[in-house]
Amino acid sequence: MIIVLKAKATQKDIKLVAEKIKKMGLKTHISRGVERIIIGAIGDEALLKEDQLKAMPIVEKVLPIMKPYKLVSREFKKENTIIKVGNVKIGTDQIIVMAGPCAIESEKQIIETAKTVKKAGAKLLRGGAFKPRTSPYSFQGMGEQGLRLLAKARKITGLPIVTEVMDTSEVPLVADYADILQIGTRNMQNFNLLRAVGKVNKPVLLKRGLSSTLKEFLMAAEYIMSEGNHNVILCERGIRTFCEYTRNTLDLNIIPVLKKETHLPVIVDPSHGTGRYDLVNPMGKAAIAAGADGLIVEVHPNPEEATSDGDQSLTPKSFSKLMNELKLVAKAVGRTL
Amino acid sequence: MIIVLKAKATQKDIKLVAEKIKKMGLKTHISRGVERIIIGAIGDEALLKEDQLKAMPIVEKVLPIMKPYKLVSREFKKENTIIKVGNVKIGTDQIIVMAGPCAIESEKQIIETAKTVKKAGAKLLRGGAFKPRTSPYSFQGMGEQGLRLLAKARKITGLPIVTEVMDTSEVPLVADYADILQIGTRNMQNFNLLRAVGKVNKPVLLKRGLSSTLKEFLMAAEYIMSEGNHNVILCERGIRTFCEYTRNTLDLNIIPVLKKETHLPVIVDPSHGTGRYDLVNPMGKAAIAAGADGLIVEVHPNPEEATSDGDQSLTPKSFSKLMNELKLVAKAVGRTL
Amino acid sequence: MIIVLKAKATQKDIKLVAEKIKKMGLKTHISRGVERIIIGAIGDEALLKEDQLKAMPIVEKVLPIMKPYKLVSREFKKENTIIKVGNVKIGTDQIIVMAGPCAIESEKQIIETAKTVKKAGAKLLRGGAFKPRTSPYSFQGMGEQGLRLLAKARKITGLPIVTEVMDTSEVPLVADYADILQIGTRNMQNFNLLRAVGKVNKPVLLKRGLSSTLKEFLMAAEYIMSEGNHNVILCERGIRTFCEYTRNTLDLNIIPVLKKETHLPVIVDPSHGTGRYDLVNPMGKAAIAAGADGLIVEVHPNPEEATSDGDQSLTPKSFSKLMNELKLVAKAVGRTL
Amino acid sequence: MIIVLKAKATQKDIKLVAEKIKKMGLKTHISRGVERIIIGAIGDEALLKEDQLKAMPIVEKVLPIMKPYKLVSREFKKENTIIKVGNVKIGTDQIIVMAGPCAIESEKQIIETAKTVKKAGAKLLRGGAFKPRTSPYSFQGMGEQGLRLLAKARKITGLPIVTEVMDTSEVPLVADYADILQIGTRNMQNFNLLRAVGKVNKPVLLKRGLSSTLKEFLMAAEYIMSEGNHNVILCERGIRTFCEYTRNTLDLNIIPVLKKETHLPVIVDPSHGTGRYDLVNPMGKAAIAAGADGLIVEVHPNPEEATSDGDQSLTPKSFSKLMNELKLVAKAVGRTL
Repeated sequence: MIIVLKAKATQKDIKLVAEKIKKMGLKTHISRGVERIIIGAIGDEALLKEDQLKAMPIVEKVLPIMKPYKLVSREFKKENTIIKVGNVKIGTDQIIVMAGPCAIESEKQIIETAKTVKKAGAKLLRGGAFKPRTSPYSFQGMGEQGLRLLAKARKITGLPIVTEVMDTSEVPLVADYADILQIGTRNMQNFNLLRAVGKVNKPVLLKRGLSSTLKEFLMAAEYIMSEGNHNVILCERGIRTFCEYTRNTLDLNIIPVLKKETHLPVIVDPSHGTGRYDLVNPMGKAAIAAGADGLIVEVHPNPEEATSDGDQSLTPKSFSKLMNELKLVAKAVGRTL
Repeated sequence: MIIVLKAKATQKDIKLVAEKIKKMGLKTHISRGVERIIIGAIGDEALLKEDQLKAMPIVEKVLPIMKPYKLVSREFKKENTIIKVGNVKIGTDQIIVMAGPCAIESEKQIIETAKTVKKAGAKLLRGGAFKPRTSPYSFQGMGEQGLRLLAKARKITGLPIVTEVMDTSEVPLVADYADILQIGTRNMQNFNLLRAVGKVNKPVLLKRGLSSTLKEFLMAAEYIMSEGNHNVILCERGIRTFCEYTRNTLDLNIIPVLKKETHLPVIVDPSHGTGRYDLVNPMGKAAIAAGADGLIVEVHPNPEEATSDGDQSLTPKSFSKLMNELKLVAKAVGRTL
Repeated sequence: MIIVLKAKATQKDIKLVAEKIKKMGLKTHISRGVERIIIGAIGDEALLKEDQLKAMPIVEKVLPIMKPYKLVSREFKKENTIIKVGNVKIGTDQIIVMAGPCAIESEKQIIETAKTVKKAGAKLLRGGAFKPRTSPYSFQGMGEQGLRLLAKARKITGLPIVTEVMDTSEVPLVADYADILQIGTRNMQNFNLLRAVGKVNKPVLLKRGLSSTLKEFLMAAEYIMSEGNHNVILCERGIRTFCEYTRNTLDLNIIPVLKKETHLPVIVDPSHGTGRYDLVNPMGKAAIAAGADGLIVEVHPNPEEATSDGDQSLTPKSFSKLMNELKLVAKAVGRTL
Repeated sequence: MIIVLKAKATQKDIKLVAEKIKKMGLKTHISRGVERIIIGAIGDEALLKEDQLKAMPIVEKVLPIMKPYKLVSREFKKENTIIKVGNVKIGTDQIIVMAGPCAIESEKQIIETAKTVKKAGAKLLRGGAFKPRTSPYSFQGMGEQGLRLLAKARKITGLPIVTEVMDTSEVPLVADYADILQIGTRNMQNFNLLRAVGKVNKPVLLKRGLSSTLKEFLMAAEYIMSEGNHNVILCERGIRTFCEYTRNTLDLNIIPVLKKETHLPVIVDPSHGTGRYDLVNPMGKAAIAAGADGLIVEVHPNPEEATSDGDQSLTPKSFSKLMNELKLVAKAVGRTL
């Protein structure tokens, strides 16, 4: 860490700051520039309490050198993490598509959708039993009954299932049914929940928070991994910006950045990321071109009757078209679907 | 709700949309403009499923007329809600200041701070026992032991205490100690947690999420109120923008807007809202000038030794200065402190 | 336009608002909902002064139905606009890549780069002679001398040239040399400049402003077209968000949205859009997959010696690699390069 | 400047970077941390070409130590700059309010408004003759005729006038009439225009761009000052965020930050900053409480008939009320009005 002192720093100030750093267990290295004194703190940066240094009035700024994440970082593990769910591998050259309805509504709906998406080439079935909704008066999901229907759809189609868990108290229940536990956008920094799924022996699909920085996203994954569960899939699903033509701004830039910074697989949700069914196809293809390892897509047999997010769901026909087109894009970037 | 059809809408399309609306339980009102057909849906807007209408390809846009929040709204309840905590009333002409350290660190620290802030005029003591931290490797709070120290400080000073609860499983424990339960920024849309504190007979201080819209903020309060707990205090604490000179962008604009839209009291956290100790004073005063009902401020006996957020904590001396200056601003806007 | 009145609106209020609308030259259509009175204004929405209606205290909100742009809109012109520059056509199935250095630095630099990018398949040469720089102390471009060198490079390679014009007073000079006039991000709402290039008989490449909405972007193009120049190319080049890992957030979502809303060609600048040379390749490919008609890319023979933006420039070798890979992606989405 | 090398940097890499820095005219200082090599560049940071260093693949990041602005900075000039316009002084303990209509519409309108705002205590008259409008079809201002009417209003009331200049070619004309030249939000980085007003012997009111960082804002002022005109007034007027309840997000946080970083006076525009007439009063008072040196406020004799921005203009009566209340807030923070 680099500590820059204010222009007026005296010899006494320098000593004070240096001693504080030493007390934290690091060595110091003082460098006198033309206009500023700079103190380098050498050693394990994790020992440094950045806030305490910033709280010293003589300190102008504190510049971290090291990245705060460890287990998630490429420096820690060079090779791509490959996550196995049944016969499916996530994080290889093969693009993996997860698809299904926003919310599970009925046995007919989920099983019909499961068959449809499987036929089109999806490798996992998604579907929400516990739904985070902005309004307390909106449909909140079918709960455990929904999980049972998901399991039935899995039995029939063989597709592993991914579904959201919203609260620590529901982790055991959801983990009983799901093949992959999903942490939703609004819970990306629900640290108790992150720790709880970190103790479960099931892969976790971690959705990026609406206003999450790269560091916060990776630190959320670090929470899960620090509890022992190293099977984390990162999912970009749109950030909040001033743009008014999409529900969120799907940020594909983070894909190549994540592939550099971490060994974890990265997938993209163009349905929530844009909130518009007509953008799922172009943005889904763009995500693969940018290097994503897979997509998670909302498909509903009849979006005009969906209890949730009908405006961003693909019809089975549009989904099938998307899959055919994705195949070509995957090939163009040296991958398969 | 107003449904605007695309320019090419035929008589058949109009009928289809109108029938869908009628099936939802509302009446329709068709208006032919020069370039667009507009369908008004008349009745209880809550019955309308906006997403389903948007999912119809002939629909260009859907414009809600009514606000989605009810219990929190000024239309529902005209008079200001006044929340009583012991002898303290929040939401009257008297400005209420809550103060204390970011995290409880020791008996000495919390009791010393409690005495100090009381002497300066604070009416409640704040302090974190369960701390949401970006890194799993940072100090996570003292837990129940911290709560016991808080209670001791209350006993000694008589100041009611406000402290954060992070998980549904900890609600009973924290509610046992706290006078006000705080929901943190990262949990503003942790709907299970909102429901849980909605069932407790203690006031809730709800912090605005980093990228929360007005609607989302009020709907989060609606979640709590819909469970029966109507004692909600709203807290602005900064939003995420591109601005680099503050940790967050404290958004004072929302104060007068909230005072119009809702009857709930509104307080401001200039410590987290700016992340800079040198901005707490000017922004605290500005918040009161803009109409806030109170402040929540971080004070630490020695910010350079704080385990968390030392860079945004006031020293006892700065806090005392702030309180004196706030008194003048409060008076200038017709209030007391 | 739909005018929603406040709940307490009386018969007199309704009359007042209706008369105001009629005075503006439109008919009114009053609809009584359960909780609100809604007035529809029927006729040419351009006649309505939205601000004046919003200024009436009884008006709760004003909802526009029509889009404010005309000449740029797909409704006005269904077929894609194809822009011809010498032998090059922009807006067809063929992807067009424009490439070259950020700033023209010397004859050797620009001619060498021109030859290189032509060989790799670029169809136009880009290069700045007048450079908008954040600091008054940074290199501001070679000015007219730079334009002469650009012209020389065009003569040698046959590549048409695109270069920025920053001020109305320089439009005649730049138009003398350039094949396409570029309006930079910071000038997207320099309305005098937009009008000035609207009077020139040369295509205009209009870069999106850093915080421009869709409407503002299209209205800027409308300014140019309203002066008679219908040859406008829209260029997405990144927006300002909280994201810290890219200089800007390249917003590919706007590509399919623009292709729906307007008939004008859309290109993408992954160099400025990300500010990182290592992201130009993946985001360039993603842009084409999302439906862009072309790219504009910074290439420098030696980025480590560039006077401007070396950190986002490709080397000739990386550019050549990009072009080869783009060819495959273009083919995958049914286009050529 | 601090240059951090990637973990794998060899002795040869270090030498290469160090030599590059030396060639730029600075000394180097190499520091070996536990995990990273850090090179300090010592000397005049302005000589360093940050982009070129970032373009070197072995460089991980480049951290500037010094601020890029000079003439505008507090380090360069410790005392507050006081700007004199006739008998008015901006930047002293006296709060200065500038008021008037968004656009000049007629002789009656501007003279009536001038008399009204003077009576209420405004010290300068604002009014637009050249109006930047999002749509080419909106009223664009009265041009020179408007300037003549402004001058007439000045003659009658004695109030100095502030008005916008939009293009370099109009600088001489506007400077002939105006007492203060205003640079609008959209032109904050119109560098030619900044240079042009930097050569004029009249104060400049520089409005912050919608997505301007602190650095960009101050560098825009630096452009003006670097041409010799040191009389620059900075004006916060709202930034673009996701917030939907205000046209822009008025960012009061920047006031105390600017007062620290620069000696220039800082005023606030709550009319454009919020876009809502009902927020001008609370946010105007908050701006003064936060330390602003003045306000610029839109006042129209009849907002419901205004040609521009009627929805954010105060009536004469509301303005008079605001001035009375501002007096109290000014006094509370040790200032006068």
